[in-house]
Amino acid sequence: MIKTIGLVIRADNASATATAQRVVEHAQSKGLNWVVSAREGVPDGFVAAHSVELSELSAHCDLVMVIGGDGSMLGAARALAKADTPVLGVNRGSLGFLTDIRPEDAIQALDQALAGDCLIDRRNLIGVVVERDGERIASGSALNDIVLHKGNSARMLSFDVAVGGQKVYDAKADGLIVATPTGSTAYSLSAGGPILHPSLSAWVVVPMFPHTMADRPLVIGDDQILCLSITDQHQSLPLISCDGQTHISVMPGDRIMIRKLKEQLHLLHPGKDYNYYAVCREKLGWATRLGD
Amino acid sequence: MIKTIGLVIRADNASATATAQRVVEHAQSKGLNWVVSAREGVPDGFVAAHSVELSELSAHCDLVMVIGGDGSMLGAARALAKADTPVLGVNRGSLGFLTDIRPEDAIQALDQALAGDCLIDRRNLIGVVVERDGERIASGSALNDIVLHKGNSARMLSFDVAVGGQKVYDAKADGLIVATPTGSTAYSLSAGGPILHPSLSAWVVVPMFPHTMADRPLVIGDDQILCLSITDQHQSLPLISCDGQTHISVMPGDRIMIRKLKEQLHLLHPGKDYNYYAVCREKLGWATRLGD
Amino acid sequence: MIKTIGLVIRADNASATATAQRVVEHAQSKGLNWVVSAREGVPDGFVAAHSVELSELSAHCDLVMVIGGDGSMLGAARALAKADTPVLGVNRGSLGFLTDIRPEDAIQALDQALAGDCLIDRRNLIGVVVERDGERIASGSALNDIVLHKGNSARMLSFDVAVGGQKVYDAKADGLIVATPTGSTAYSLSAGGPILHPSLSAWVVVPMFPHTMADRPLVIGDDQILCLSITDQHQSLPLISCDGQTHISVMPGDRIMIRKLKEQLHLLHPGKDYNYYAVCREKLGWATRLGD
Amino acid sequence: MIKTIGLVIRADNASATATAQRVVEHAQSKGLNWVVSAREGVPDGFVAAHSVELSELSAHCDLVMVIGGDGSMLGAARALAKADTPVLGVNRGSLGFLTDIRPEDAIQALDQALAGDCLIDRRNLIGVVVERDGERIASGSALNDIVLHKGNSARMLSFDVAVGGQKVYDAKADGLIVATPTGSTAYSLSAGGPILHPSLSAWVVVPMFPHTMADRPLVIGDDQILCLSITDQHQSLPLISCDGQTHISVMPGDRIMIRKLKEQLHLLHPGKDYNYYAVCREKLGWATRLGD
Repeated sequence: MIKTIGLVIRADNASATATAQRVVEHAQSKGLNWVVSAREGVPDGFVAAHSVELSELSAHCDLVMVIGGDGSMLGAARALAKADTPVLGVNRGSLGFLTDIRPEDAIQALDQALAGDCLIDRRNLIGVVVERDGERIASGSALNDIVLHKGNSARMLSFDVAVGGQKVYDAKADGLIVATPTGSTAYSLSAGGPILHPSLSAWVVVPMFPHTMADRPLVIGDDQILCLSITDQHQSLPLISCDGQTHISVMPGDRIMIRKLKEQLHLLHPGKDYNYYAVCREKLGWATRLGD
Repeated sequence: MIKTIGLVIRADNASATATAQRVVEHAQSKGLNWVVSAREGVPDGFVAAHSVELSELSAHCDLVMVIGGDGSMLGAARALAKADTPVLGVNRGSLGFLTDIRPEDAIQALDQALAGDCLIDRRNLIGVVVERDGERIASGSALNDIVLHKGNSARMLSFDVAVGGQKVYDAKADGLIVATPTGSTAYSLSAGGPILHPSLSAWVVVPMFPHTMADRPLVIGDDQILCLSITDQHQSLPLISCDGQTHISVMPGDRIMIRKLKEQLHLLHPGKDYNYYAVCREKLGWATRLGD
Repeated sequence: MIKTIGLVIRADNASATATAQRVVEHAQSKGLNWVVSAREGVPDGFVAAHSVELSELSAHCDLVMVIGGDGSMLGAARALAKADTPVLGVNRGSLGFLTDIRPEDAIQALDQALAGDCLIDRRNLIGVVVERDGERIASGSALNDIVLHKGNSARMLSFDVAVGGQKVYDAKADGLIVATPTGSTAYSLSAGGPILHPSLSAWVVVPMFPHTMADRPLVIGDDQILCLSITDQHQSLPLISCDGQTHISVMPGDRIMIRKLKEQLHLLHPGKDYNYYAVCREKLGWATRLGD
Repeated sequence: MIKTIGLVIRADNASATATAQRVVEHAQSKGLNWVVSAREGVPDGFVAAHSVELSELSAHCDLVMVIGGDGSMLGAARALAKADTPVLGVNRGSLGFLTDIRPEDAIQALDQALAGDCLIDRRNLIGVVVERDGERIASGSALNDIVLHKGNSARMLSFDVAVGGQKVYDAKADGLIVATPTGSTAYSLSAGGPILHPSLSAWVVVPMFPHTMADRPLVIGDDQILCLSITDQHQSLPLISCDGQTHISVMPGDRIMIRKLKEQLHLLHPGKDYNYYAVCREKLGWATRLGD
C-alpha cells in the first residue's frame, strides 16, 4: 500500500521541478504524502519541510519517481536499491534508457504504479572492494560499471584479471571496464562492448586500448568474483571509478574485488508492453541507415 | 558403468587413426568393447565389423572420443547430444576449443573418464525451424551458430528480428549470425562478436555488414524464440546455415524460428582444473602483444 | 562552353522525372539543348527523340545532371568518367554522399555550373582485370569498390594479397573489399573500414570476417597494382563484384589485378564552400549521441 | 661520405651495449670515428670522451644507429629528423616496426649503409602548437601521434575538430588520437584505427571512447592544419601528449594546432627488398589464425 511518494530531481532544473510540481499536486489530490530530494538542497518552489537527503529517502516513502536524465537515476540507484524501493524514471524530454517515461505521461505513470499496473524490471548492481595488505581500504557500488583506469599516467597499466579464482589474462591496457547489462549501453558501448539484455545475470568485461591481442569483449556470469591486480608501478595512481561518480586510488598489490550486490534496483515500467529493444532503437538510432 | 567406447575419426587422417589405434589397444587391455565411426567409411587399419554410422554411435557405446579438430566435434555433436553420450575431444596436435586434449594425453584422459575424474561441461545446442505457409519445411541444429546469409545475391537482405514476440529491429545487412557461447569463438568472433563464457545460457546476435546503425552485437538469453523474417525479394535465395555444414534455402515470408534445443553436448574435461580462459589465451594469442 | 545538358534519371521515379522536367524547361529557356538517359528506356513525360543510351550520353553533352540516389551516380560514373564529363548530383529528397544537391536547388546549381561557379571534386575510379592462363578473361570498373566474395560457398576463401609485387598476407576470410575514398562510406564502412577523405590517392583494404589476426583495415596508396589470387578449390565459384553491380566468377589460379583507372569522375559542387565533413555529419549521424 | 657514426642506446641495457661495442670495434677497424648517446648518461663500458647529448648527436655524426626498441627510436627521432641524419634501427632481439634489424645483422647493416646499399624510408613527423589568448604557450613534436586526453577528469571532453578551416565534428569523447602512418601501428591501432602504409602523406584521426556516432576512424591528408578546441570546463586539465613522452596541459579556449613538420626521419633499410608488410605479418601475428 503506497502512502508516500518520493521525488528525486535536480533543484536547478526548471523542467524537472515543473514536472515534479504537477506530480505533487496530483499526489495530494489522491491523499498521498510526498517528500522531495535534490543533491543541491531544497529545489526551487518547494519548502524545506518536504525536503530529505537522498540517503534518507527510502525510509520516508514507498515509491520514488526520479525526474531527470539517466545520470540522475544512477545517482539515486544505489540508495534506492538498498531498500527495495520501486522507482519510476521520468525524463526531461528526451528518452533515457532508465528514464523512459515522458514528462507528459508522468501523472498517468504514477496512477499506473499506484494501481499495480507495471512491469518490475530488476536491475543488478555491482560492487567493488579494495584490499591492501589484507585490510579493506575502500569500497563502492554501481548500476552501470566499475572501471579501472590509468588516470593521469602516461604509460599504460599492466594488470591481471581472474574470475572465480581462475586466471583470465595478463593485460597491458589503459584500463578495464566491467559493466552490468544496464551499463552495457553506456561507457562499455563506446569502448566496443556488446549490448546485454537487462534480463541477463552477466557482465561484459572490456579492455580499454589493449596493447595485447586479448582485445575482445568477454561476457561472463555475474555469480563469481572478478579480481583485478595491478602488476607494475606508476608515477600517478590508477583509479577505480563507480558509475563515473566515485573514485578510489589504487596501488600495485591491491586486491580489487568486483562482485554482484545482493540489492537490485526495482525499475517500474507502466503498463504491460515494455520493450527494451524499442528503447535501443530510439536511443541508438537503429532505424537510421549508414551511408547510403 | 562404461562398457563400450566409441571413436570418431577421419578415415583419411593418419595421425588421428594412429591415436585411435593406441586408444583401442588400451581399451581392449582393460576389457572394454569399442566401435569406430568415420564419415568416409571404414578407417584405415580398422575392420568393418567395428565400424558404425555416426547416427548409430550413441546406441552402441557409453563414452565417445572424438579425435580431430573442432570441425570433427561439430560434426558429431548433434548426434551425441541426442543421447546424452559423454565426449572427450582429442586434437591432432594443435589445441582446439572443443578438442582440448593433446594426443599424447589421450590414454590418460580415457582412464580419467573411466574413473569419473572429469568435469562435465554441458554445452547448449541451438536449432532452427523454417515454416512456409504454416507448414514446417525444414529444420536443422547446431553447436556453434545458425547463420542467415544472402548467398549469391548482389543486394543485401532486408529482414526483421524479433525475440520472445518483441520486435528487435528491421535490419538491412548481408545476414545475421546467432551464436551459442560455444560458437562465440568461431564465425561470430570474425564478425566482431564478443566471447561468451560457455556457462552462460545466452546467445550473441551479430549483424553481418549492417547498413544501419543497428550494428552492435547483442547478447540475449537463450530461453526465448528468436524469429527472423525476410522482407524483400531476391533473385537468388538467401540461405540458413547450421554450423556452416547444412544449408536451407529460405524465401520472403518464411518464418525462421531459432530456439535452444533440449539436448546438450556433454563435453568431458579430464581432472578438476579445466580453465576455459587458458584455452582462449592459447587459441586467441591473448599473451601476444600488439604492435610494440 | 556548355551547349547541351544531359540528364540521368530513373524512368519510373516520379520525383526524379518532375525535377528533370523543371531542369529541361530552364535549360530550354537559356537556349541550351538537352538529352535524357534512363536505364529503363524513355522516361515518363519525355519523347524518344531526346532519349539516349547512358553509354552514348557523354558524346551528346557537355554537362550531366544525375537525379537520384548515390546508386544512380554509381551507375553513371564509369560512362561519364571516360569522357571527363562534369556531373552534378541531385538527390530525390534525402542527401547523398554523391548526390548532395537538394531538388529545390537543382536550377540554381545548374546556373552555377554554367557560370563556372563550382568546385570540381575529382574522384578516382578503380578497375579490375582477371587473367586466366595468361589470357585476360574479364574486366570491370568501379567508383566505390571491388569486392572478392566467396558467394554461395559454405567455406571461407583462402587467398593471397600482394601490392606492388610485395606479399601483404595470406588470408582466410569470406572475402576482401578494396574501396576508393568514395567507397569508404559505403560497403567498406559496414565492414569496419575507416572513412577516407576523397582527396586522398589511397584505397582501404578490408578483409571480410577474417579467420586470421590479419583482421585490420589497411590503407595503401592507389598507385600500385593490388593482386589477389585464390589458393583453394571451392564447389561454387567465388565472385568479383564492381560497385555491387557487375560480377565476375573467378577460379583458383586466376590473377585478379586491381589498379587505379586513368579516368576520374568530375563531380561538381555549386559554390565555393563545399565541406565533405558536413555531408558525413548528416549522413552518418555524427551529431547524434550514443546511449546517454 | 660517412666519417662518424653515432650510437643511441640505453645505458642500462646489457644487450644493447654489447651490440654497440661490436659496432664500435667494427667502425674503428674501418677507420671511422664514433660517438654514443644515452639518456641515462655514459653507457656502461664506454668512456665519457665519446659520450654526447642526444640533442648534439646530429652535429657530430653522419649516420646514427639506434639500438633498442621502437620506444628508443621515438626518443631519438625528433632530434635526428631536424638534421636529416640517416638512421639504422637495431632491435634487442625482437623485431620492431622501426627497429627492424636484428642484433646479429648490425655489422652487416652498417656496411650496407656505408656502401649506400639501403632503401631510404622517409617518415613524416607531426607537430602541435598550443595558443592561448593569441600567444603560443607550448609546442611539441612526434613521430607516432599527438593525443588529446581528458587525463584524470571523470567526465568526458567536449571538443571541436576542424581541418583546413572546415569543421569536421563536435565530439564528446575521452580524447582524440591523431596518428601518422608510423603511429598507425601503435596507440591508434589499440583504439581501433586502420594501418596506414608509411608511404602515405596522411593521418588517421581516431576518437577515444566517443559518446556520439562520430565514432569511426577518419583518414585525411597531412597537408592541412587540424585544429582542436575544447568547449567545456573540467576540474582537472586535459592533456596533449606527443608520442606518449611529453605532455602539455590545455584549457578550454586554447587553440591546439596540429600540422606536418618539415623534417622527416630518414630511416634506412639495408638491401633492396624491404617489405613493410613482412614486418606487420610478424609483429601483428597476421599468420596466426583466429579461434579455429
